[in-house]
Amino acid sequence: MNTPLNYSHLKLGIIGGGQLGKIMSQKAKKMGFHVTVLDPTPNCPAGQVSDAQIVGGFYDQAKLVELIRTCDVTTFELENVDVEALKPLFDQGHAIYPSPYTIALIQNKYEQKKFLDSKGIPVPTYKDVKTPSCLESLGFPVVQKAKKGGYDGRGVMVLKSKEDLKNAIQGESFLEEMVNIDKELAIIVARNLQGEVACYPVVEMLFDERVNICDSVMAPARIAPALAQEVKDIAIACVESFEGVGIFGVEMFLTKEGKILVNEIAPRPHNSAHYTIESCVTSQFEQIVRAVTGLPLGSTELIIPSVMVNLLGEEGFEGEPLLEGLPEILALDKVSFHFYGKSHTKPFRKMGHITVLDHNLDLALARALKAKDIFKVKGTKPL
Amino acid sequence: MNTPLNYSHLKLGIIGGGQLGKIMSQKAKKMGFHVTVLDPTPNCPAGQVSDAQIVGGFYDQAKLVELIRTCDVTTFELENVDVEALKPLFDQGHAIYPSPYTIALIQNKYEQKKFLDSKGIPVPTYKDVKTPSCLESLGFPVVQKAKKGGYDGRGVMVLKSKEDLKNAIQGESFLEEMVNIDKELAIIVARNLQGEVACYPVVEMLFDERVNICDSVMAPARIAPALAQEVKDIAIACVESFEGVGIFGVEMFLTKEGKILVNEIAPRPHNSAHYTIESCVTSQFEQIVRAVTGLPLGSTELIIPSVMVNLLGEEGFEGEPLLEGLPEILALDKVSFHFYGKSHTKPFRKMGHITVLDHNLDLALARALKAKDIFKVKGTKPL
Repeated sequence: MNTPLNYSHLKLGIIGGGQLGKIMSQKAKKMGFHVTVLDPTPNCPAGQVSDAQIVGGFYDQAKLVELIRTCDVTTFELENVDVEALKPLFDQGHAIYPSPYTIALIQNKYEQKKFLDSKGIPVPTYKDVKTPSCLESLGFPVVQKAKKGGYDGRGVMVLKSKEDLKNAIQGESFLEEMVNIDKELAIIVARNLQGEVACYPVVEMLFDERVNICDSVMAPARIAPALAQEVKDIAIACVESFEGVGIFGVEMFLTKEGKILVNEIAPRPHNSAHYTIESCVTSQFEQIVRAVTGLPLGSTELIIPSVMVNLLGEEGFEGEPLLEGLPEILALDKVSFHFYGKSHTKPFRKMGHITVLDHNLDLALARALKAKDIFKVKGTKPL
Repeated sequence: MNTPLNYSHLKLGIIGGGQLGKIMSQKAKKMGFHVTVLDPTPNCPAGQVSDAQIVGGFYDQAKLVELIRTCDVTTFELENVDVEALKPLFDQGHAIYPSPYTIALIQNKYEQKKFLDSKGIPVPTYKDVKTPSCLESLGFPVVQKAKKGGYDGRGVMVLKSKEDLKNAIQGESFLEEMVNIDKELAIIVARNLQGEVACYPVVEMLFDERVNICDSVMAPARIAPALAQEVKDIAIACVESFEGVGIFGVEMFLTKEGKILVNEIAPRPHNSAHYTIESCVTSQFEQIVRAVTGLPLGSTELIIPSVMVNLLGEEGFEGEPLLEGLPEILALDKVSFHFYGKSHTKPFRKMGHITVLDHNLDLALARALKAKDIFKVKGTKPL
């Protein structure tokens, strides 16, 4: 604790064993580190490729303590974690990055927004919902967001009119103006223990309208260089405002009026940066390992543009995943296939992704759309 | 057996659990496959990142049978394997690629050379050593090679004069002319189950003269395009001559007279192509998985040049590895660090490697040499 890290036998802990933890673990193992994953699902994706898995939930204090005590450095693939259990361990000197204080700030989307706002970061107009009557205070349409626990489109509700109030989120929530969105942009900022900062290219996220899940990502975003620089400056300002250590996915709106507004920050690897595995010198997954272990950050240079497409579980199926069209998509030029090893599929579950590389981004997009048409993740049980 | 493969739950077996098996396993896991490794060392590098390890040697027939019976497809990270045990399994229809017949041919360097020669592939002048007197039959200097079992410079002896005959290799061997080498070149050829062929760029291998171990690799080789094409044509002819399935590292000599001669073929991932992980669209490690499972081959396009440097155990140390200089080399631009997770180091053992990327190959080489100077793998026991 607080002694210099010994990179010869470094033990890394990862809270969360889904696809983000899996790829992070693979990059840590590439560097020769020992990796233990905490996840409630035995044989989770990350557990399959790591030295050890502790089977336990993210609010299981005993298991969190066990993980942190047996590892030299612990990090996260998700933010829905018992931060109150982690704070005393961090205060005792255990290396937990991002710090539980950072995670706590980010967990609560309302507090996160208020904090960024107080630091002069541009955010959409927002307002706390203290009583049900507050729901009408910004007019309609308006976006209602749960303060905690939402992800992949969950915990977000568009209230178009008074009629929709009956569907309003019941727990703690806040309102956000309905932004007139031109593009949804994202960027990863890495900041290591020493305060060194590195920024990835700005990318463009496209969403599946049915479920509001990020569907595909274009890297780089099709925006002017000056705007890309503005996005980078804002993203770095965000991460420096709370002195984050690790990597941070910053999601932003580009409004039709050309303004950049920060939507939210994820204190971990981000779906929008899967493309970095193939397209950048250093992937986001290696970068987080470098950042939290105090190693110098790697180059974030884009060496070839790409389009990433999430492979979601087909509607109408659950159970063990059954792949359709794998040979066909791998016959397309410059396609990299990732499948996470989840034992069960369900509609819209993130089961894998592909990255299509091309020096010409339009050609990559065309092949990505073709691949998306061909490839299906069905399941053993029709619904 | 001989039924179409089900990519939804494909089980891959890998014979050999060192660094080549480790990275191959990581790429198979990326694609969602289940991986079992056979290796005599518990917790070997590949075992650390795979679903399962069978602890057993490569001549342990029961363990080989166990691996092959529990996997849909089995492949190799090394060629020193009991091929006689594998042949009947292959003949029964088990998917073992490259086939044990291919492995058998390649295992015996003399038979390999004779076979390539018979197919019109250019090879150095060679001669069987039937009796000790044969050792003088090509004059001096001459290269004596063990027919079987050599690797990383072992099983090769340069006989400079009659004086050296007392050091001659004792087992079955053959002689090869002392080629007047300008450069040592290597190339990977992939050929899948369907006979589709793909060729990687030609690279240049530089050797540590002290122990004749490949020390660094420049990708691409600094040779004229017409010569590179000749190398590719010869390499493809080699692999097609024995209808190899998998990936094959073809090592060649470029003589001072400008001739290409095939030195030897490795029926597996090759040290000279580690650079493909970062520099090419599809790494050699994903390519072998695609090839042996009958998937379409991936693009071999070089997207950024690089220099790969092996990180060998320092002279004077053994025991648990101790790293020196990791933060320093990671501070260099565009350096990717691989450490294999071997529990013991010894002088000249391959412990890891780095790949230095740069659009300008000379700049990559300069940084690679600097990194090699800075980084050391020492050990807990001084010798």
